[in-house]
Amino acid sequence: MAVPPSICPHRLLPLFLGLFQGALLLFFALFVTYDEPSAQPDDTNLVASKVYSTFPFFQDIQVMLVVGLGLLLTFLPRYGFSALTHNFLLLNFSMQWALVLQGLLHHFHHGQIHLDLHKLLISEFAAVTVLISVGAILGRASPCQLLVMATCEIPIYLASEWVIVTHLGVLDVGGTITIHVFSCYFGLGVSKALFRATQQPLHPKETPTPSSDLVSLVGTLILWVFWPSFVAVLCEPGDAQHRAILNTLLAMSASAITTVVASSLLERDGKLSPGHLQNGSLAGGVAIGVVADMAMPPAAALALGSLSAVVCVLGFRFLTPLLARKLTLHDQCGIHNLHGLPGILGATASVVAVLVASKDTAGSQPSQLSPAGGNASEVVQGQWGGRGVGGQALGAALRLRCLARPPERLCFDDSLYFKIQGQDESPGADSSAEEGALALKE
Amino acid sequence: MAVPPSICPHRLLPLFLGLFQGALLLFFALFVTYDEPSAQPDDTNLVASKVYSTFPFFQDIQVMLVVGLGLLLTFLPRYGFSALTHNFLLLNFSMQWALVLQGLLHHFHHGQIHLDLHKLLISEFAAVTVLISVGAILGRASPCQLLVMATCEIPIYLASEWVIVTHLGVLDVGGTITIHVFSCYFGLGVSKALFRATQQPLHPKETPTPSSDLVSLVGTLILWVFWPSFVAVLCEPGDAQHRAILNTLLAMSASAITTVVASSLLERDGKLSPGHLQNGSLAGGVAIGVVADMAMPPAAALALGSLSAVVCVLGFRFLTPLLARKLTLHDQCGIHNLHGLPGILGATASVVAVLVASKDTAGSQPSQLSPAGGNASEVVQGQWGGRGVGGQALGAALRLRCLARPPERLCFDDSLYFKIQGQDESPGADSSAEEGALALKE
Amino acid sequence: MAVPPSICPHRLLPLFLGLFQGALLLFFALFVTYDEPSAQPDDTNLVASKVYSTFPFFQDIQVMLVVGLGLLLTFLPRYGFSALTHNFLLLNFSMQWALVLQGLLHHFHHGQIHLDLHKLLISEFAAVTVLISVGAILGRASPCQLLVMATCEIPIYLASEWVIVTHLGVLDVGGTITIHVFSCYFGLGVSKALFRATQQPLHPKETPTPSSDLVSLVGTLILWVFWPSFVAVLCEPGDAQHRAILNTLLAMSASAITTVVASSLLERDGKLSPGHLQNGSLAGGVAIGVVADMAMPPAAALALGSLSAVVCVLGFRFLTPLLARKLTLHDQCGIHNLHGLPGILGATASVVAVLVASKDTAGSQPSQLSPAGGNASEVVQGQWGGRGVGGQALGAALRLRCLARPPERLCFDDSLYFKIQGQDESPGADSSAEEGALALKE
Repeated sequence: MAVPPSICPHRLLPLFLGLFQGALLLFFALFVTYDEPSAQPDDTNLVASKVYSTFPFFQDIQVMLVVGLGLLLTFLPRYGFSALTHNFLLLNFSMQWALVLQGLLHHFHHGQIHLDLHKLLISEFAAVTVLISVGAILGRASPCQLLVMATCEIPIYLASEWVIVTHLGVLDVGGTITIHVFSCYFGLGVSKALFRATQQPLHPKETPTPSSDLVSLVGTLILWVFWPSFVAVLCEPGDAQHRAILNTLLAMSASAITTVVASSLLERDGKLSPGHLQNGSLAGGVAIGVVADMAMPPAAALALGSLSAVVCVLGFRFLTPLLARKLTLHDQCGIHNLHGLPGILGATASVVAVLVASKDTAGSQPSQLSPAGGNASEVVQGQWGGRGVGGQALGAALRLRCLARPPERLCFDDSLYFKIQGQDESPGADSSAEEGALALKE
Repeated sequence: MAVPPSICPHRLLPLFLGLFQGALLLFFALFVTYDEPSAQPDDTNLVASKVYSTFPFFQDIQVMLVVGLGLLLTFLPRYGFSALTHNFLLLNFSMQWALVLQGLLHHFHHGQIHLDLHKLLISEFAAVTVLISVGAILGRASPCQLLVMATCEIPIYLASEWVIVTHLGVLDVGGTITIHVFSCYFGLGVSKALFRATQQPLHPKETPTPSSDLVSLVGTLILWVFWPSFVAVLCEPGDAQHRAILNTLLAMSASAITTVVASSLLERDGKLSPGHLQNGSLAGGVAIGVVADMAMPPAAALALGSLSAVVCVLGFRFLTPLLARKLTLHDQCGIHNLHGLPGILGATASVVAVLVASKDTAGSQPSQLSPAGGNASEVVQGQWGGRGVGGQALGAALRLRCLARPPERLCFDDSLYFKIQGQDESPGADSSAEEGALALKE
Repeated sequence: MAVPPSICPHRLLPLFLGLFQGALLLFFALFVTYDEPSAQPDDTNLVASKVYSTFPFFQDIQVMLVVGLGLLLTFLPRYGFSALTHNFLLLNFSMQWALVLQGLLHHFHHGQIHLDLHKLLISEFAAVTVLISVGAILGRASPCQLLVMATCEIPIYLASEWVIVTHLGVLDVGGTITIHVFSCYFGLGVSKALFRATQQPLHPKETPTPSSDLVSLVGTLILWVFWPSFVAVLCEPGDAQHRAILNTLLAMSASAITTVVASSLLERDGKLSPGHLQNGSLAGGVAIGVVADMAMPPAAALALGSLSAVVCVLGFRFLTPLLARKLTLHDQCGIHNLHGLPGILGATASVVAVLVASKDTAGSQPSQLSPAGGNASEVVQGQWGGRGVGGQALGAALRLRCLARPPERLCFDDSLYFKIQGQDESPGADSSAEEGALALKE
């Protein structure tokens, strides 16, 4: 079962990453500094209290992205090591790349960029888009293809985020529209461009095993626990942040229970699907992001959480097979169900919230809120459309032979990218048993 | 090995949860709001600093309950997905149910309940009782039975907590008596009512495998790390909270080492039992809760931690088999050893601490402390007795046919509740190998 | 496959731990107290804000040591339970032992030691040295041997730390020299003393399986996420702490990417080695510790992170086999590559930083910095030399028959120390399949 070296032109990966790391070093040496140390004790206290108020949130988000999301992606039983490593690699690469681009775009004053924890956090948010988009093509794309995708996605995200937040004035603390909806449709566009009209057959290594499903569920639970930190970290300290935490907790709690209801009702024998649980429990967190800090009643958070879980489970059951059949659209992790549909739901909710708020409790923050809702729907429409031209160009780039997309029979297998010791001899318990049995028969 | 659909009337589960979720939504829409936004900058700062001082503790507790406790319960090798999911589902359900009941009982002023992070935290504490009680019947009860149990346990807990804390004036920051002792005897009562006088035979799927034992130990370690947050979150900020953290750390550290000593001495060849480690290391955290913030010497925390580990290990070795044989009392996870015995030990310690404090260092907080100890023992006695009548009624309800307690041969198996892909074909490595061998023989 | 009881004289382990726990209790009862409760509200606020600013960092470090490091060590497929438990046991034992010694050395005033969170944290740092050193002999030493090693290492660490920090005035917030370099060479010395000139053959149970490699990578990721807390916890609040966090984040991010580059370039077919990833990603965190809070440009942190990852991967590829062949130096986990080489690199960087700082930006903290660098290299040299005499004596002690070093064929096996249920019957999926097949053939 040895893979011939000719099909793994991995030289491109270290070359690309090495050059990037060198260029980053040069960029940092030339342009990036820290703030001058504070001269006054009051300033020192201010810096200290900023660190204490941001850093715990920041660590929570790091756990989510590195451990939680990584484990969630290990549902492919023989691709766990790759899923975890590629997720980790892409997070670091995208974060550094976003740091450079954001520095150039927003923070370049007098030839210097002053680095702080807040800027790292913003870059981390940009990197999240890449980690979500990867879900559409997980297991069938090479690391080089993923890096090319990340290289293109970060600038497009920054542009789109600038249009949505700065230009249109949409408030989106939890990144529902700017991160989740954007990265979902970007990822689907990449998937379409990569696989074109060929429907992907079911791969024998694609089916989760009980233990890979269990590990993936642990990833979901880690994401579920820390999601409120993700939504609330960029909120105004005080009431707005408090409200964002509470709304997210309520929405995620409603999601968890509604997922069980919806998944159980969809099956004839009432059994729950692990995939529904792994994704549906998080749908509320995606949807609530755009309205989390608004002055809306707690019941709305509950309703939004429940509704998004229903939409997510229905998407897995009906929409994903339909898209695969009709549009030959391949979505490995079902990101359309977890990020796309609940994101659109959240955007719609923000429109409703703004309309209600402007009529009803016209007092609270109307100036900020009013542009949000009206534009949120435009934005989502724009994202549906906007991935046309760029998607074709990126697709052509991704299909370059040198990026070494793995052949179908070698997909979903760690041994293509890692020296997994002993994998050749015993490639997993089940198959060794089967192979042993087969060998005996012969 | 297909399970005939007739024995899984899972329709009740979505129906019950769906109705509950709808009623919750209605209740929230009618009665629950957030506080008005603060008008003054000082108020905003107050809210912000409250969030910063509570939220990290809150997140730690969420990790404990969702990830730590969930993983601890996965020691049943083929029931891991169910253990993790049922724990997650019950946490959310019980938390929401406690939120409603507590709102009605304590916070219903002028027709409104004002939701904040502290109230969510209190509801989470209530939900912990359900998660502990489940340990007595894990693997042999259906999700519907667990939900019925949760529905009954939350109001009884709230009443008992009101009597203990408000009426008797017992201080119990870590919930040793109100949570651990209460939920242990409630769970044992449910177990007795459910299984009545029939002794449960050893089930072939009940024995942990090396890998399920490992995962369960990881759960223990997560609980061990975050336990100080659980004990200290409700303490008075400042010295009391500082002391509670230190006492808990000392007690848990002593527990960890003493468990190794006790477990090793009990076996003839000195080998450690995984079950002892998984539980004994946490016993100190259970016992210290009631005295953690008191003005007692650090040596007392060490002694209490050691003693509770000894009691826990002895309980596993001698008491659990005895109770099973003499009282036909079934305790799947040994909650009596982890929560019952160390809880009683902690309650006794609080009596001693109060008696010593009132004689000795009569200065520190005598007015608050004095009622605590004298009543703690009464309370524990009351809990032994109180589960009589209610337990019979609940037992009758739990034995209703429609709740679908699984037949013995289908217990401890994820495939009863989940569409575990590939489980039917290869239900775990060991058995597939064995079955393969058997099939070849035939 | 039953192990005869004669070769497991485990009675020594509970005896030793039990006596230690008793002595600790006595020591605490006689000498250790808490601070008097604050009389003034201002003092209470001060204590509260100290708790809030230290405790989240403290919890992060606990997660690193108990869960992260524990999981990292489970790469030995049949030794996972032992690795996790011994790590946990040694952390608690070493922390308590360091608490006693530090109390006697530094904090013994008027016959009393006042315990607080900061002293616990310092003791935890001392315990880290033991956990690192164990890596050199993991799997081939008995728990008794590990405890004897810990008993010796803690006082030597405290002396060495006193010389380095107090006497030589080296600033080392992240413990690069005092913890990582020290414990690496101490561990290698112990390994040399224990195994002397006999080269350790490759043990059949030493090879990681895909799933044990995956769990170990999860441990790495947990360590990676929380490493900034470890480096920054003892920094001056404000700018220095902020800078330490940022520098650590940058260094670790550069490490992660450079590890992929270096590992991929070293193999002919470009496949990554799991061992490189598990260790190289953390090398930046080791190296940055000694300079993290200095006023240096961010590019330097990136460069140091990249360089240390290269050094670590090269060490695994070339130096470890060389040391094993030439010096018969056995290093099970490669601690020389993860802690030794990057530590020396960090020490060298601190010399450079100080030289540059004293010439260049002579303003910022020169008085504190100047002694650091000049001495850092002396210190490292001293550590190379210093382990001569003590090492021989400790080696002789460790080779005592009563400490029960396991015979080679029983190494790397949980069943020597734990009652792993079912392990005898089915010692892992692969072998059960093979054994089943073999049994059929016969």
